[in-house]
Amino acid sequence: MRTFFTISELRDELKQIRKEGKTIGFVPTMGYLHEGHLSLLKRAKAENDVIIISIFVNPTQFGRGEDFDSYPNDLERDSILVESVGADIIFAPLVREMYPNGYSTFVDVEGTITQGLCGRQRPGHFKGVATIVSKLFNIIDPDAAYFGQKDAQQVCAIEQMVKDMNFPVRIVTCPTVREANGLALSSRNAYLNQKEREEASVLSKSLQEAKRMVCLGERDATNLKRVMTNLINTAEDARIEYIEIVNAKTLQSMETVKEEILIALAVCFGKTRLIDNIRLDCKS
Amino acid sequence: MRTFFTISELRDELKQIRKEGKTIGFVPTMGYLHEGHLSLLKRAKAENDVIIISIFVNPTQFGRGEDFDSYPNDLERDSILVESVGADIIFAPLVREMYPNGYSTFVDVEGTITQGLCGRQRPGHFKGVATIVSKLFNIIDPDAAYFGQKDAQQVCAIEQMVKDMNFPVRIVTCPTVREANGLALSSRNAYLNQKEREEASVLSKSLQEAKRMVCLGERDATNLKRVMTNLINTAEDARIEYIEIVNAKTLQSMETVKEEILIALAVCFGKTRLIDNIRLDCKS
Repeated sequence: MRTFFTISELRDELKQIRKEGKTIGFVPTMGYLHEGHLSLLKRAKAENDVIIISIFVNPTQFGRGEDFDSYPNDLERDSILVESVGADIIFAPLVREMYPNGYSTFVDVEGTITQGLCGRQRPGHFKGVATIVSKLFNIIDPDAAYFGQKDAQQVCAIEQMVKDMNFPVRIVTCPTVREANGLALSSRNAYLNQKEREEASVLSKSLQEAKRMVCLGERDATNLKRVMTNLINTAEDARIEYIEIVNAKTLQSMETVKEEILIALAVCFGKTRLIDNIRLDCKS
Repeated sequence: MRTFFTISELRDELKQIRKEGKTIGFVPTMGYLHEGHLSLLKRAKAENDVIIISIFVNPTQFGRGEDFDSYPNDLERDSILVESVGADIIFAPLVREMYPNGYSTFVDVEGTITQGLCGRQRPGHFKGVATIVSKLFNIIDPDAAYFGQKDAQQVCAIEQMVKDMNFPVRIVTCPTVREANGLALSSRNAYLNQKEREEASVLSKSLQEAKRMVCLGERDATNLKRVMTNLINTAEDARIEYIEIVNAKTLQSMETVKEEILIALAVCFGKTRLIDNIRLDCKS
């Protein structure tokens, strides 16, 4: 396994790999890896010859007052994990390598996909995501790129961007990986204290309860959200930012659920903002 | 020479070309070709194995009330010209091929490069340019792309975008081609009547006069612009939109000219908006 810190060195290596006719699977991350990231790497490895992971805490996707400065990082620890699943290349550039002085170009997915859900609370977040992913695609030119379903809105935005911008990249979405108590894995879980971590299992429980109700025939979004809200509020430290039920493709919110839906939520425990979601098929 | 109307057919052809290890030179245009475009194709041909020209009147770079609907086009005439200089492929997609229903992703170069000059009068213009050029780069993956210095601000925006977005494309800028009377070639010259066409030669004359003054030591931008204004206003139908003197790289305007400068202007003759510019090195 090799680690590159500059674009030019990475490109030299990639040129050689391309010359050998090998396919490239790419997993973009912000590091502080967990089993969710590793599941992406494993999937990438099953489908490609060479696996590249980027580890870059991208400043342009953080808003003012968010946790850019405190975002956890540990390249040594991450390297061991990456090697353990047999990935080939880590790309870990500095901020000034990706955003040199005078940087001024941004990619933005406009419309409902990025306006609702997290986009309402985090203006500019998906613009930062679309920009860095575009840059990484241009640098790496992967055959396929792997994203976790936990960031459902990010997946939607990236899929729209890839389609609109004609990126020759196959986007693969992998299931959310969870702890035994249901808590979706996230690098930000490192912020949680023991009590918050236990309480936070209520998020996946509320999604499972909504799924149960939908399976039993409930179609009223308000009812579903009310039950979820009550359940989440049983956790002392939970502060709900949003619970939304939207069309899984357009992310437009709905009153009466039908077809493929996404139930998504963002809830703060103390200073830690957690997100989770579930996709359901409501064909009746 | 072959003409493609869809992205997928073009990509199939390009895959074959890449497999043969050939280099690709790309000339993006809006068609209604003139000698300026042909000079780009000739330069591309001298430097690459395969030459592709796109002919696409890009709606996203036209503002409300601009000439999108009346922009001249004649694919048959263009095809003969393209073949005459030995280019290999024309890509001429329909609008719905490039911007299908639900299209929502845009690339924007922010800051002074796109705010001043034409950007002030044509908000969104360079966003449309950056978006379509990004899409075409992703579809074609050229080794080099060729642009005319006549669209100086466009060249600056594209260069900034390519650098920021890490496009693996070499940008080549070619000199403005002019008629015998100095008028810069433009597809929009087709709109001019005989009187306007003759009067419009005052634009290049004013740029040459500014050059003469700079060579003689004039460094005051206001003086230069005043002389140019007076000269252009001798043309009965001229309506000046702007005359600006800016740093050639940052496009920031300056009071005292120094180093590499760009003198740029936009002037309307009747309903026809013409632009022209000159680059000067004022190292003293």
